[in-house]
Amino acid sequence: MNDFTYYNPTKIEFGRGKENNIGEYIKQAGIETVLLVYGSDRIKKNGLYDRVTASLKKQGIGYEELGGIVSNPVLSSVYIGITIAKEKKLQAVLGVGGGSVADEAKAIAAGAKYEGDVWDFFINKAQITQALPVFTVMTLAATASEMNGNSVILNEDTKQKYSIGSVLVNPVVSVINPELMATVGKDYLAYSAVDIIAHSIEVYFTATAHPNFNSRIVESIIKSVMETTEILLENPNDYDARAEFAWVATQALNGLTPTGTAGGSFPNHMIEHSLSALYNVAHGAGLAIVIPAWMKWYKTKNLKQFKRFAQEIFGVENEDVGIEKLEKWFAKIGAPITLAEANIPREGIEELAINASGLAKVWGMGDSYSKDIIAEILEKA
Amino acid sequence: MNDFTYYNPTKIEFGRGKENNIGEYIKQAGIETVLLVYGSDRIKKNGLYDRVTASLKKQGIGYEELGGIVSNPVLSSVYIGITIAKEKKLQAVLGVGGGSVADEAKAIAAGAKYEGDVWDFFINKAQITQALPVFTVMTLAATASEMNGNSVILNEDTKQKYSIGSVLVNPVVSVINPELMATVGKDYLAYSAVDIIAHSIEVYFTATAHPNFNSRIVESIIKSVMETTEILLENPNDYDARAEFAWVATQALNGLTPTGTAGGSFPNHMIEHSLSALYNVAHGAGLAIVIPAWMKWYKTKNLKQFKRFAQEIFGVENEDVGIEKLEKWFAKIGAPITLAEANIPREGIEELAINASGLAKVWGMGDSYSKDIIAEILEKA
Repeated sequence: MNDFTYYNPTKIEFGRGKENNIGEYIKQAGIETVLLVYGSDRIKKNGLYDRVTASLKKQGIGYEELGGIVSNPVLSSVYIGITIAKEKKLQAVLGVGGGSVADEAKAIAAGAKYEGDVWDFFINKAQITQALPVFTVMTLAATASEMNGNSVILNEDTKQKYSIGSVLVNPVVSVINPELMATVGKDYLAYSAVDIIAHSIEVYFTATAHPNFNSRIVESIIKSVMETTEILLENPNDYDARAEFAWVATQALNGLTPTGTAGGSFPNHMIEHSLSALYNVAHGAGLAIVIPAWMKWYKTKNLKQFKRFAQEIFGVENEDVGIEKLEKWFAKIGAPITLAEANIPREGIEELAINASGLAKVWGMGDSYSKDIIAEILEKA
Repeated sequence: MNDFTYYNPTKIEFGRGKENNIGEYIKQAGIETVLLVYGSDRIKKNGLYDRVTASLKKQGIGYEELGGIVSNPVLSSVYIGITIAKEKKLQAVLGVGGGSVADEAKAIAAGAKYEGDVWDFFINKAQITQALPVFTVMTLAATASEMNGNSVILNEDTKQKYSIGSVLVNPVVSVINPELMATVGKDYLAYSAVDIIAHSIEVYFTATAHPNFNSRIVESIIKSVMETTEILLENPNDYDARAEFAWVATQALNGLTPTGTAGGSFPNHMIEHSLSALYNVAHGAGLAIVIPAWMKWYKTKNLKQFKRFAQEIFGVENEDVGIEKLEKWFAKIGAPITLAEANIPREGIEELAINASGLAKVWGMGDSYSKDIIAEILEKA
């Protein structure tokens, strides 16, 4: 077992109606003004915006707004948020939405306390040393952004979809109310399920050393995701399944699963980022395409764990059958499993591979994932 | 799924030699003086005391000492620690030892910032509103005291072994170096294993609602505890098994397992506290005696979960066989499973039941666990 530091100071407020207390949670942290960040006008139509702002007003918390955050959030919008936060001297950032909104809230929080270009953090040119406190009210379960210090932002100019990770942008408090997640469409539910599974299996398969306990936690997450996804596709209003799905999503990427492992990496996310950067594919959809292809390419490098996966998740002995069963499950829940299904032509592979190999270098995987290897993997998709 | 708040701000520094950085961790928190709390002189003989104090000195952190903490730590010693902390105006408490030392460090930390009698917190006469920051260097894995806000203290005068729980006494930083745990004897290893399993199954069996994900986490913990205990009984120097055992112990009682469950309680701990209060039995040994007896008495109240336990942990269908297999496993690793083995006479049951029923009231289980019911359970042991 490898040495590690585990530190996750985010407080989770989980349950029905908890967004009505967000003003109280922010006030308890001694904060008087926030930048309210959100996506489409959907939260205005469904009443969430009103409930959140009512809670802020009740506690006397002033706020400025930045709406229109898109999935695969973009750097130009982050810059706007930073400018507002700096000009109005706001004390915190409150994201109300899904993982994209949370990610953008974090990037703004880091940039608001930095004199240089916030993109410096994403390309490892500078380290985050301070940030505004972040709060979130989540409307989508998948990214675990509510309980980690990660933020993924797309630089539209350079077509780089890069990330930061710092406990300084871990949310201080995140509200997870499963009821707010009940209106998500079946397609995004499926993409979310794939994303959660992707978070779970990256280190599970790639770590050079992986304690049995961590394997069991990952398998527990995957089993619960699959189980609750199937319930929710049948009955979107099953609160308990929705709640378990949401909490499992948080556990999949809050720092618990990789503790004590050695040498894990995130190749599927790395390759997928090029799909969503160049073709604006939904992140979970891109992952559903990449994962089975990557598994087929990678399996011999960690055969024991692939056999374990097949056995524990699907009750089969053969690792190829395990991969095939996962691929079929992705298809069954409605996720694309080939590039063609996402309207990405074979001729696009070259450009995708070049883009992804750039990120591979930034993520320290340049030696294992050359342009040619990434192209070889994508050919399987 | 029930609403919950999850908040665990303890930073874990896990791995070899990390006790040598304890001064640095304390300094980073802006602290200049600590009360150093420890148990026997063993840490002076094995060099741990020297390494810890060297680290404090290197960072210019002043310290006073309180040694001689016993297992089932006593209130009279807590009072001494509080007096030292108040008189010397110390800024934090550093516990170096096992769960008992950590528990006493927390009680001192709470009492040092309180004008009244610290026992008020234990009998619910007052709430903890502030406390000195707590740090720990752990030498024994079992209680998870390194990552929770719990402290159990024995009032020698009243023979009450009662507890507090407050995030204000969660350690700021805890060092878990599995190498420091390698010298524990086989008996205490067995007791620790039982204690970890006890922490895991209390809510697992008693919650009126228990999400599948939580069941899976608990089963993962139990499987890993059993697996690593058997490895360590064969080879106490297996670092990876020691490390996994330690980390699993932490996960078993850091607040993760009960999230979203409804109505769970800790009857086995409640009954066991009377065994260790009246007969000074080691906590884990007492639990090994109580658990199988309690399971036989309780099983019909949650038959589905007892069947699940039998299936998942031992691969058998019948719930009675599951209980029997757990009991046999306790015996196999060298834990006592009857009152007689712990030299507790049948005539002692009456007094034990009276003592435990007192705690049942404090813990809000007075209605379910009368003196007679507790006696009925203990008769099975």
